[in-house]
Amino acid sequence: MLNKNVQAFISCEAEYEDAKIVLFGAPFDGTTSFRPGTRFGPQAIRSESFGLETYSPYQRKDLTDISAFDSGDLEFCFGNPERVLNEIEMRTVQILNDGKLPFMIGGEHLVTLGTVRAVAEKYPDLHIIHFDAHTDLRDDYLGETLSHASVIRRCHDIVGDGRIFQFGIRSGDRSEFEWIEQGHVYTQTFNFDGLAEVVKHIGDKPVYLTIDLDVLDPSIFPGTGTPEAGGVTFPQLIEAIFKVCGNVNVVACDVNELSPTYDPSGISTATACKVVRELLLAL
Amino acid sequence: MLNKNVQAFISCEAEYEDAKIVLFGAPFDGTTSFRPGTRFGPQAIRSESFGLETYSPYQRKDLTDISAFDSGDLEFCFGNPERVLNEIEMRTVQILNDGKLPFMIGGEHLVTLGTVRAVAEKYPDLHIIHFDAHTDLRDDYLGETLSHASVIRRCHDIVGDGRIFQFGIRSGDRSEFEWIEQGHVYTQTFNFDGLAEVVKHIGDKPVYLTIDLDVLDPSIFPGTGTPEAGGVTFPQLIEAIFKVCGNVNVVACDVNELSPTYDPSGISTATACKVVRELLLAL
Amino acid sequence: MLNKNVQAFISCEAEYEDAKIVLFGAPFDGTTSFRPGTRFGPQAIRSESFGLETYSPYQRKDLTDISAFDSGDLEFCFGNPERVLNEIEMRTVQILNDGKLPFMIGGEHLVTLGTVRAVAEKYPDLHIIHFDAHTDLRDDYLGETLSHASVIRRCHDIVGDGRIFQFGIRSGDRSEFEWIEQGHVYTQTFNFDGLAEVVKHIGDKPVYLTIDLDVLDPSIFPGTGTPEAGGVTFPQLIEAIFKVCGNVNVVACDVNELSPTYDPSGISTATACKVVRELLLAL
Amino acid sequence: MLNKNVQAFISCEAEYEDAKIVLFGAPFDGTTSFRPGTRFGPQAIRSESFGLETYSPYQRKDLTDISAFDSGDLEFCFGNPERVLNEIEMRTVQILNDGKLPFMIGGEHLVTLGTVRAVAEKYPDLHIIHFDAHTDLRDDYLGETLSHASVIRRCHDIVGDGRIFQFGIRSGDRSEFEWIEQGHVYTQTFNFDGLAEVVKHIGDKPVYLTIDLDVLDPSIFPGTGTPEAGGVTFPQLIEAIFKVCGNVNVVACDVNELSPTYDPSGISTATACKVVRELLLAL
Amino acid sequence: MLNKNVQAFISCEAEYEDAKIVLFGAPFDGTTSFRPGTRFGPQAIRSESFGLETYSPYQRKDLTDISAFDSGDLEFCFGNPERVLNEIEMRTVQILNDGKLPFMIGGEHLVTLGTVRAVAEKYPDLHIIHFDAHTDLRDDYLGETLSHASVIRRCHDIVGDGRIFQFGIRSGDRSEFEWIEQGHVYTQTFNFDGLAEVVKHIGDKPVYLTIDLDVLDPSIFPGTGTPEAGGVTFPQLIEAIFKVCGNVNVVACDVNELSPTYDPSGISTATACKVVRELLLAL
Amino acid sequence: MLNKNVQAFISCEAEYEDAKIVLFGAPFDGTTSFRPGTRFGPQAIRSESFGLETYSPYQRKDLTDISAFDSGDLEFCFGNPERVLNEIEMRTVQILNDGKLPFMIGGEHLVTLGTVRAVAEKYPDLHIIHFDAHTDLRDDYLGETLSHASVIRRCHDIVGDGRIFQFGIRSGDRSEFEWIEQGHVYTQTFNFDGLAEVVKHIGDKPVYLTIDLDVLDPSIFPGTGTPEAGGVTFPQLIEAIFKVCGNVNVVACDVNELSPTYDPSGISTATACKVVRELLLAL
Repeated sequence: MLNKNVQAFISCEAEYEDAKIVLFGAPFDGTTSFRPGTRFGPQAIRSESFGLETYSPYQRKDLTDISAFDSGDLEFCFGNPERVLNEIEMRTVQILNDGKLPFMIGGEHLVTLGTVRAVAEKYPDLHIIHFDAHTDLRDDYLGETLSHASVIRRCHDIVGDGRIFQFGIRSGDRSEFEWIEQGHVYTQTFNFDGLAEVVKHIGDKPVYLTIDLDVLDPSIFPGTGTPEAGGVTFPQLIEAIFKVCGNVNVVACDVNELSPTYDPSGISTATACKVVRELLLAL
Repeated sequence: MLNKNVQAFISCEAEYEDAKIVLFGAPFDGTTSFRPGTRFGPQAIRSESFGLETYSPYQRKDLTDISAFDSGDLEFCFGNPERVLNEIEMRTVQILNDGKLPFMIGGEHLVTLGTVRAVAEKYPDLHIIHFDAHTDLRDDYLGETLSHASVIRRCHDIVGDGRIFQFGIRSGDRSEFEWIEQGHVYTQTFNFDGLAEVVKHIGDKPVYLTIDLDVLDPSIFPGTGTPEAGGVTFPQLIEAIFKVCGNVNVVACDVNELSPTYDPSGISTATACKVVRELLLAL
Repeated sequence: MLNKNVQAFISCEAEYEDAKIVLFGAPFDGTTSFRPGTRFGPQAIRSESFGLETYSPYQRKDLTDISAFDSGDLEFCFGNPERVLNEIEMRTVQILNDGKLPFMIGGEHLVTLGTVRAVAEKYPDLHIIHFDAHTDLRDDYLGETLSHASVIRRCHDIVGDGRIFQFGIRSGDRSEFEWIEQGHVYTQTFNFDGLAEVVKHIGDKPVYLTIDLDVLDPSIFPGTGTPEAGGVTFPQLIEAIFKVCGNVNVVACDVNELSPTYDPSGISTATACKVVRELLLAL
Repeated sequence: MLNKNVQAFISCEAEYEDAKIVLFGAPFDGTTSFRPGTRFGPQAIRSESFGLETYSPYQRKDLTDISAFDSGDLEFCFGNPERVLNEIEMRTVQILNDGKLPFMIGGEHLVTLGTVRAVAEKYPDLHIIHFDAHTDLRDDYLGETLSHASVIRRCHDIVGDGRIFQFGIRSGDRSEFEWIEQGHVYTQTFNFDGLAEVVKHIGDKPVYLTIDLDVLDPSIFPGTGTPEAGGVTFPQLIEAIFKVCGNVNVVACDVNELSPTYDPSGISTATACKVVRELLLAL
Repeated sequence: MLNKNVQAFISCEAEYEDAKIVLFGAPFDGTTSFRPGTRFGPQAIRSESFGLETYSPYQRKDLTDISAFDSGDLEFCFGNPERVLNEIEMRTVQILNDGKLPFMIGGEHLVTLGTVRAVAEKYPDLHIIHFDAHTDLRDDYLGETLSHASVIRRCHDIVGDGRIFQFGIRSGDRSEFEWIEQGHVYTQTFNFDGLAEVVKHIGDKPVYLTIDLDVLDPSIFPGTGTPEAGGVTFPQLIEAIFKVCGNVNVVACDVNELSPTYDPSGISTATACKVVRELLLAL
Repeated sequence: MLNKNVQAFISCEAEYEDAKIVLFGAPFDGTTSFRPGTRFGPQAIRSESFGLETYSPYQRKDLTDISAFDSGDLEFCFGNPERVLNEIEMRTVQILNDGKLPFMIGGEHLVTLGTVRAVAEKYPDLHIIHFDAHTDLRDDYLGETLSHASVIRRCHDIVGDGRIFQFGIRSGDRSEFEWIEQGHVYTQTFNFDGLAEVVKHIGDKPVYLTIDLDVLDPSIFPGTGTPEAGGVTFPQLIEAIFKVCGNVNVVACDVNELSPTYDPSGISTATACKVVRELLLAL
């Protein structure tokens, strides 16, 4: 697997054979109903990663110490979400088969369904930890079941009750919150309260960590399609990441929903780069 | 009263006759001396409201449960503030006469004078709760007495001492703060401390609630003419709104000073929409 | 057919029954591979139309003299182009059945396929006049046959050889130009040379006029997904419109590919509004 | 007259006593109904003038050869157009009394009325040459007679029939064009055709030259409130300026309607600076 | 020393002879490797200062009470950092020789080296308090020793061990943090903890205060070249300024790294203006 | 020579050994005095080249037919122009030594000096054809002789009188135009008149073609540091390119001065990509 004609995320230039973590971009926003632009997220993160130090003063580690490979972006045809998901699934399967950890950069949140399909196939007892402003639990959106607004509901179709743990949620329609109250998923609104208990509960089960960056407050992360005031701070987010990665077995992950189109100052992209760095170092 | 050729705020599509709350826009920024643009506020709030869920996880209520009507924008001629205020007053009188609650979306803060004139006419013991970064208590601004910088002083001309309660104030000239210290109005700088006591003090008196959105910190609300660092957070603002609406008798209100011109990422408009939603549900 | 909760294009407020021309918006950009944003085109054109005079000094006519109705935007679910085309076709059929002229505002160019399906059904000898920077004649795009890049090829599937007349073309891949040289369509590169002969050739046959606004030079129309230097000027475009409308029987039309996202100064939207006005008056 | 605390237009730093031309800014946009921002025009022109060479290859002259003084901006209170016009008139009177040529930089076009009042007082047989996209001949705008849309009509109130010559006009309402056809003013639509005859006709009479920069095509001058496609090019504009200044007696002039708010690339401001330079050198 | 052809920071218009504080701008960003633009910082701060009140409700003081003079910007030739530093040093020497306090507005952080050279010459026991997101302690950057990334290391070359106190640091490469741990400088990561002890430790020694505004969180200060999430708030920053100025002898200072290019909403510039105001009043 | 970790210009992916043309980027803007940003030019051109067709309808050729290799960007340290020029010269020497044609993408215009040094070493009778808005003939700029404003003067130091041919020039200071009139270089102001004669005059001598993209009118190319109204159109520019490449022996070339910072709509970058494509095909 070559990253032909691609500028890799800073320092993620190991040989594929040697890499423990394999990044890939999923530049898709084809079901985004409101404000598109996350298709530009992966390339922006790569380009701007060169403004980032490879060293983290939070973890006192350096990207040069780890072994990661950026395999570039998948090429999608817009207008056919199912095909897009298939391509994501195939890429993920290949990475998993080679014994490496898949790390996807979106793209809209629907792309998570592609990776989860592959990961749940390999790890039948997969648990999902989900950081997001939105529940993403709609059964369908204007009649379509493959939508950024229903991606976690589709993941629930795969992993079932009691396996999904949401944090930071502050937007959804009433029916989603009613469905939550029926106990299908664990949902913590507004913040990360309870995360320590959740990771303890999960124990050594395999975990998929999906981070919709709009869990961050729009003040620090304005560059996203549907900004929701009242979000978490950057230090809170990385502390939550450290809590997850330090206590459970993360077998795959993604970071998504950066839309550089709405990020004229560049702080959203810079913040996304730092989240990727911290997550790479924490894994 | 028809909202002819207008796209209404999300879900505010009751028949006028049935509506308990009537919205209208006051797209005026004609006395704004520094950076204009609030004239575009009402239309931006309406357009972007469609990116908003109608359900509030804060109040666990839904806009579909209430009965509101958006009567559209007033049409103003710039260059004649007194005429603008008359048109606002007339619209407010009509809404009050029909037994409904007026909810104005500005526009610069001067528009509040138009509604307050009408509301104070109907409720002689009117009290005003005022959230803002600026005192707006100048007696005149470069010789003009009708100015966004003197609107609360003009309201004081109407309601008199001891009736106005300001919160979040962090900018004004020295003479304004000296006038405050003479005891004409109650002013809490920087935050909402003391709001519980104020609403208790007001008791069941009629209250006009005016929210200059620049009370919010510019990090979450950059889209305004005169951003003042050191403001309140979104959760603090809506908690203050809940405290007011849950404890006193709000008879009219407004939300103003969004300037989409300075909001390239759209987070200010999205936040304004959410403030409007929370206020509609709290009333 | 009501335009519920919509702000109409300036002066297009006739009663539906009385209207000779019926506008509707098709805010779809779901197959746009490069830079999305045309979904925001119709709303931008409506909002900014209020900065436009209703009078045209070019034609010495006024919009208040004609009878047009703006029926608002169709609501689409992204991620399913076929369903989108069906909805466009149904709306067009209804307008045609009521004896009115359909005038669609896109959206990406693929939306034209929906209207052309309906119009060609009613007018089997339909001819298409096509102003564009791009040939849009690919047989498929990354495997998908429903794409903005293949829309005119799909129209050719319907109307066949000798019925399509392109002007202003300055971009396409080699295979498209080879297909053109086989004589399936008439293609004038770079400008409108030969238009007089074409309209004479068409005579009194029914004509569908589709205007991809990127036929304009990017200097005057920067707000589009794929700007192509070397385009026509605004006076050349409206002169071409007058030549078409004054000499052949236009039975339906569309104007598309405004992407306000890439139009920070607003000149593209203002220009699009003027093209719509001139076309409405010329019809 | 001192330009206290002002950064002057490049090279316009003569002593007031020595200066033949005196610049001043009129940063007013208080009657602008559509998109405000011309209040920022004068300061933008001054700041960006330092990106300009003082030498003109068109005229083969240099600003260092002439004697001009920039007296800075007038300070206005928004919300009271009549007071604004009085202040402009007083400044103009002072400059004229001191035997110097007033050169005003707007602001919206209404500011021209202030200077024309003063200049027509001194030169009763004043003629006005007017370059603009808009007629500005409305008798009133939404009931107000002091408006950017009626400024030339107000000038006509002063100078009367046969004294005003408009070029480049391409927008107005029907009533304005009907009034034009009654012969009150000379109006050339779209271009500068006939300018040679007009300057010959005027002969040695005193001339006020007012340039609304939106006479330029929006492609080269996007930064204005109401851009109108189909305008003149920059070379056409300066050639027209040379034709006027080289053949008639220009006794005062202004350049207006730059709105830097809508000029993210800066080309409008750069072009405005160059128009000011060429006009300064041509006078 | 005259501020010829300069618009001064609001209220800093004392006569030079009377002034206690002398501002000057250092519009240089010539070693900025990532995103340039701080060259525009000083002019932006001056222009936007007119949107600021001169009164501070934090300190209950007014700029009209102090005596400051803005001597304008130095004129630099880009491409020669050593020459730039010499010019800064000479300006600083002159101000110090005249018994006034130099207050520099950057520009990139390298400019601090120019002032520190002059100040350390006069005050051999100079201590430096440094607020910043970045350590700026590299020995060289791509081989160059004069760089924004090594400015504090160069200052250390002058003042030596134990004299530099950094706060808010959250970015640097590993070698810089290793050098810190060798004890050359005092470094507080992320916040201002320990500042009280530091100012007590410094006592009455002369202090140079250098504020890289990117110590602020990018949410409130997006307009900078290398934004680093996880910064301090505006109230925290001004409280730290009060703590420094209220307890030690600040003999010179600077505020730098505003890049208006990345500040489309203007909140960064507005915040920078307020930091300058609070610092002027606190000195 | 590998283009490690680089995304190549579209279709320029030949093996280095097979390539006839070798591209490289020179992302330097360190002497730019006015508005920096050209450092981002090469990366923007590469990224956006994927929105371009590889086929040219102007030349009826396709990039897939030629053999070009994009060797990526040089890495520069800002603040030391001489070192930058050395690195450019070394890269150019290597490409020339391998018998390939160097094609540099700037960056500011100064970078041309690096390539010209290398090319003139190999071809002592080198002629230079120069398309630009600016003369770039200053002997020094604020005392520095290595400056974007003096680059062609430095080239003249190398090649001497009668070897440099400028077209499209419309800005410079008086001394530059006086120096031109002394006959050192051939300078055609405003347009390409005389180009046919010049290429005939040059005959089969080796030619370096340097294109400062600001020769284009700012309407089509706003994204540059010093936009100059009154430029050439895109069709005029490519026609001039065809005239040069079709008639003389171009041995090296560059395209420079795109500053994406000032290109919010993206049309400048799109146009630059197209110029690069047409030049690649014409060589």
